[in-house]
Amino acid sequence: MIFELQFLSSEIDARAGRLCLPHGELLTPVFMPVGTRATVKGIMNDALEELASGIILSNAFHLYLRPGADLIERAGGIHKFMNWKGNVLTDSGGYQVFSLSALRRISEEGVSFQSPLDGSYHTFTSERVMEIERQIGADIIMAFDECSPYPCDHDYAQESLERTTRWAARCRREFQDDTQTLFGIVQGSIYPDLRLESARQIIDIGFAGYAVGGLSVGESKREMLLALAAAVSALPVDAPRYLMGVGLPEDIINCVAGGIDMFDCVLPARMGRNGTVFTMQGRLNIRNAVYAEDYRPIEEGCPCPACQGYSRAYVRHLFKCGEMLAAILATTHNLAFYKRLMQDIRQAILEDAFSDYAADFLGGYLGGTYEK
Amino acid sequence: MIFELQFLSSEIDARAGRLCLPHGELLTPVFMPVGTRATVKGIMNDALEELASGIILSNAFHLYLRPGADLIERAGGIHKFMNWKGNVLTDSGGYQVFSLSALRRISEEGVSFQSPLDGSYHTFTSERVMEIERQIGADIIMAFDECSPYPCDHDYAQESLERTTRWAARCRREFQDDTQTLFGIVQGSIYPDLRLESARQIIDIGFAGYAVGGLSVGESKREMLLALAAAVSALPVDAPRYLMGVGLPEDIINCVAGGIDMFDCVLPARMGRNGTVFTMQGRLNIRNAVYAEDYRPIEEGCPCPACQGYSRAYVRHLFKCGEMLAAILATTHNLAFYKRLMQDIRQAILEDAFSDYAADFLGGYLGGTYEK
Repeated sequence: MIFELQFLSSEIDARAGRLCLPHGELLTPVFMPVGTRATVKGIMNDALEELASGIILSNAFHLYLRPGADLIERAGGIHKFMNWKGNVLTDSGGYQVFSLSALRRISEEGVSFQSPLDGSYHTFTSERVMEIERQIGADIIMAFDECSPYPCDHDYAQESLERTTRWAARCRREFQDDTQTLFGIVQGSIYPDLRLESARQIIDIGFAGYAVGGLSVGESKREMLLALAAAVSALPVDAPRYLMGVGLPEDIINCVAGGIDMFDCVLPARMGRNGTVFTMQGRLNIRNAVYAEDYRPIEEGCPCPACQGYSRAYVRHLFKCGEMLAAILATTHNLAFYKRLMQDIRQAILEDAFSDYAADFLGGYLGGTYEK
Repeated sequence: MIFELQFLSSEIDARAGRLCLPHGELLTPVFMPVGTRATVKGIMNDALEELASGIILSNAFHLYLRPGADLIERAGGIHKFMNWKGNVLTDSGGYQVFSLSALRRISEEGVSFQSPLDGSYHTFTSERVMEIERQIGADIIMAFDECSPYPCDHDYAQESLERTTRWAARCRREFQDDTQTLFGIVQGSIYPDLRLESARQIIDIGFAGYAVGGLSVGESKREMLLALAAAVSALPVDAPRYLMGVGLPEDIINCVAGGIDMFDCVLPARMGRNGTVFTMQGRLNIRNAVYAEDYRPIEEGCPCPACQGYSRAYVRHLFKCGEMLAAILATTHNLAFYKRLMQDIRQAILEDAFSDYAADFLGGYLGGTYEK
């Protein structure tokens, strides 16, 4: 992996860069569509070449349970298995394992859990997760971490971040594959002091890139931005920074301003499946009666395959009928929207005009009651 | 509409032809994928240009209820509404209305029924159905008919076919749009004498094409083929013949041998959604464990987008996870398979070798226990 910063904004922390990975170069800030089970829901993987920006996220926990990391290794790795020529980042499964709550038990060694699929028993340790992510074969893999719950008291958050540090060190020792890149994850809940402490500890271990995890789990936007700022303040300027699981366009804009290079989020696909589509003027619910005879595309001027051929009236009809094509078209548009958003953001950074861009976007996007 | 016969088999009734319609020329025998609600489930309408053979079927009953035939008319017709450049045939709704059983009442005038969507009351008459199909704007529209139930006694089948004849005559009188083509429908249940009688009555009214309806509703294959033969024996040689709702590849081959030019069936899409895929060696259930690490395409040698990029192992994984892409890929392949099957059938007819082709296909297709 090579990361090259191309431009640092003069007034804020926004930055533009280039991240070279085995399956192609990424221009940052970049958004990664989520393909949890080696598929971005409803999208042909060929179509992802247009709709993604050269990288998607998949999930080690889900792939380990089904079809199995060993099967993916025998298939020649995840790229070949799913027919995707771009890059893949795998999350370590920390977030998913901890979401199991009643089904898991944490120890210093790792986490024992029961499969939500069949009740079978499994243990994830740093070493095991490194093995699983090696078998899956993503370009970027994440260290095993504990994603602390929200709310979470200061004492537990501290205990948890220190365990995450010890697990990160074990991941770092175990990691050997020089075709993959390992990122560390900063934890510390909503506490700026703990975020700073975690960042310092993770940096001490030393990774090629750094993620900020455990945010956007229920805390307020203010809590999120303060925790993020504390973490980022300690991160080296020359390594890529990835904010996990965030978010909506307004969150992305705010976090780019805070110095983040990489994002992932299920929302464009999930909201699309539910009939919410994005436009630069705000979100709209395409199921609404007002669109019954609206023959404009989902977003006027959008060059995506959904907007080039289909009207709001038709997409609404498909949603009302529960037809698969509804979700396909809305997801297609939302992914194309996110890609365009990131390209606009990057362009604004390169022109050293990101503050103005952000103010304009947020004013137009959030100001209106956009149902027209 | 212009229909031109290009070749009549020397030993059997199979025929190859050319059907010129407002949205392009069809080469017959032809299969029409079913897009009940103006969408072939799971398929982008752009992709249909490759996967269909220039025509799809949609359904006046479903479109009348949602989004409404008047809305489709204001949208500029079904082609524009759904973004489909090829031809459309609309079924009249007879089959669907009669399937409502408890919710409908038949009189000489027509059928009154309650909407399965909201319980509202509606009446379909010949005149109303002609108006609805005109509003939807398909290239070929079907006369309003009574699809008699199965089993059905001879007396009721006779009464029903005679009512269907009177309704067909009313449709013929009402039909005026010279950009559309109206087909009549032969009924008569499983009784060859009634099928012959119905065919003669419908031909007396005079239509540009003739459909055989009310088959493949539960009767045996033998009953179906005898009823079909009786109907076809009376049909003019120079008009297109359409067997409604049939069928599996083996049925299509048998009915092409019986002189049919046009087919439609929900099975390739529905079976695909359930994990059954077609190959020239037989069907296979892609969910089976035997495909867990089978890295061949669904069908070796198939040029379709699903077989060009994805393995059986991956498609099986998607089905096991309940992912939308599973249904998308299996439907894509099955439609491509049907298109290829019809091209092969046509080629065999043009070479006057259809009997041999049919014997070879049915031997290879049905002989094996194809799960490999």
